[in-house]
Amino acid sequence: MPSRRAGWRCLLAASAAVLFTTACGVSAPGTQSAPPVSRAADAAAGELPSWNDTAARKAIVEFVRKVTTAGGPDFVPPPARIATFDHDGTLWAEQPIYTQLAFALDRVKALAPQHPEWKRLQPFKGVLEGDLKAVLGGGEKALAELLAVTHTGNTTVEFESIVREWVASARHPQTKRLYTEMVYQPMIELLAYLRANGFKTFIVSGGGVDFMRPWTEQVYGVPPEQVIGSRAKVQYGMKDGMPVLMRLPAVDFVDDKAGKPIGIHQAIGRRPIAAFGNSDGDFEMLEWTTTGAGARLGLIVHHTDAEREWAYDRSSHIGTLARGLDEASARGWIVADMKRDWKVVYPPEKR
Amino acid sequence: MPSRRAGWRCLLAASAAVLFTTACGVSAPGTQSAPPVSRAADAAAGELPSWNDTAARKAIVEFVRKVTTAGGPDFVPPPARIATFDHDGTLWAEQPIYTQLAFALDRVKALAPQHPEWKRLQPFKGVLEGDLKAVLGGGEKALAELLAVTHTGNTTVEFESIVREWVASARHPQTKRLYTEMVYQPMIELLAYLRANGFKTFIVSGGGVDFMRPWTEQVYGVPPEQVIGSRAKVQYGMKDGMPVLMRLPAVDFVDDKAGKPIGIHQAIGRRPIAAFGNSDGDFEMLEWTTTGAGARLGLIVHHTDAEREWAYDRSSHIGTLARGLDEASARGWIVADMKRDWKVVYPPEKR
Repeated sequence: MPSRRAGWRCLLAASAAVLFTTACGVSAPGTQSAPPVSRAADAAAGELPSWNDTAARKAIVEFVRKVTTAGGPDFVPPPARIATFDHDGTLWAEQPIYTQLAFALDRVKALAPQHPEWKRLQPFKGVLEGDLKAVLGGGEKALAELLAVTHTGNTTVEFESIVREWVASARHPQTKRLYTEMVYQPMIELLAYLRANGFKTFIVSGGGVDFMRPWTEQVYGVPPEQVIGSRAKVQYGMKDGMPVLMRLPAVDFVDDKAGKPIGIHQAIGRRPIAAFGNSDGDFEMLEWTTTGAGARLGLIVHHTDAEREWAYDRSSHIGTLARGLDEASARGWIVADMKRDWKVVYPPEKR
Repeated sequence: MPSRRAGWRCLLAASAAVLFTTACGVSAPGTQSAPPVSRAADAAAGELPSWNDTAARKAIVEFVRKVTTAGGPDFVPPPARIATFDHDGTLWAEQPIYTQLAFALDRVKALAPQHPEWKRLQPFKGVLEGDLKAVLGGGEKALAELLAVTHTGNTTVEFESIVREWVASARHPQTKRLYTEMVYQPMIELLAYLRANGFKTFIVSGGGVDFMRPWTEQVYGVPPEQVIGSRAKVQYGMKDGMPVLMRLPAVDFVDDKAGKPIGIHQAIGRRPIAAFGNSDGDFEMLEWTTTGAGARLGLIVHHTDAEREWAYDRSSHIGTLARGLDEASARGWIVADMKRDWKVVYPPEKR
């Protein structure tokens, strides 16, 4: 497990890479939206309608058939049907920058009127002027300051309300869609398909757990108590005579890489039988899941579609995928090719 | 939030108190078992059959009626019907020593053949000879050593199997029943009653989460992912070529007192609407739960029955209850009197 300090640095380094290099090693994104497939049509098209009938879909359906066949050699009773999904790049888009980072930058702008000094003070000045190189000039210290100011210093109830409000209106810089519409329709169907087959679905993300929980139930059907992520320390205390949980400017847990099996153990207490990721940050979760006894499913979403989404893997700073690609075959993990295996990427636009 | 070191000390101090004073301030326990009420008869007797028709039962039923009445002013949609239960002293007996401590002492005896030096080495010598005063002579350092040796240094899978085995055969020193039969029948009915009314039930205990999870689903109907507790640090690594989570001799989180709302936030991410405890270690959980908006239920199990269980509160080292008793009325918390409000304490003995 990385030390808390190392974990914090790791998060910051990733953020720095994201801010500093605009989609380095990433093909140009398409802005076209998904064809307007109606939800009724989806249902009629049967299981996983947005998946082409290729090897990835077949392997998923075969795995589910095996573990749900009562009396069969691979049967798994429903309580043990635990499936874990990475978030950024697996359930929703993570380009050109992590959505949570977009939130942090917007939050600086929203808070600026209360902080006139930010006009002269880096890293805030850089954010307000859109000069990200200046922001990054401050290094880790500046980024830690940005994250602390935008994510902590308030109560859990206040932060939840801030996130809800932002998510309801913020739009992706390129597609102009709501971020909650930048989710992957085939993965939403996969979540529902697994639940319909007795699975309990969890999100296990390197992102902040309190940034996801306010809206995952509505968007993915995953309730807050089934969302695992990185977290800030919180402190119980009183404010205006009422108990509150204050969000402190300190990292409590980094749910990434080897942190994912740990986060899974902390929150779930049993080993998943299926895991879904897209980057080497998910390697240990996939490894932990698929080396258990009995039938197991590991799947990597491979970003191959520069037309409908983005194409990136080994050389990308966001969602780096190298070891996963190298070892998937030997480990029996499915690599889902977004371009080849998905009929649509995003859900139909809401009108 | 207590510091990690303070939390560890607090756990140790409690353990020390438990080891050192045999049920100080505690009335003599009865050893008679519950009357053999059949489960079929229970079902026929309707909701909460083991609760007398007193104010406590009425308040529970009225609360559930309010939050489940669609269109009513206090209606709560099912996903928000979160109920949290303390464990020791709320769902099962905690006298004359915490069951987890009995496990630790038994574990020293089980490991002794591999450690011949323990015959001469405190605190192990004291445990093996039943000389608990000698054990306690070593102070915190000795207790930390005991806990580390008995709870860590193995993988999560190994520890789970050790707990399963112990729980299947270890018996309470006075009643000679399995510890998993030293559970409170009225509370088991309450868990089931809430679930039947759309609640999701969680255990939120100061005890070790990995000591509870192997058996809570079978005994309480609460799956591992709905059990929150104190935890050791774990580390992801390889052992004999396979990934493991190693249990390290270091405390990661103490889920007691102000730690309970924090543990609830970490694991559930929303505020319970009902909470159940028995000691001042549950005060903050009850406070956090019942100061939220809308209908709320807080209930304290008061150990008043020296005949069928134990009678203790203010002056007991285990399950100290003072502030809770003082403030319950003003805060609208129900105090369930075990002697007055419960028809039976334990489930019928299995034959």
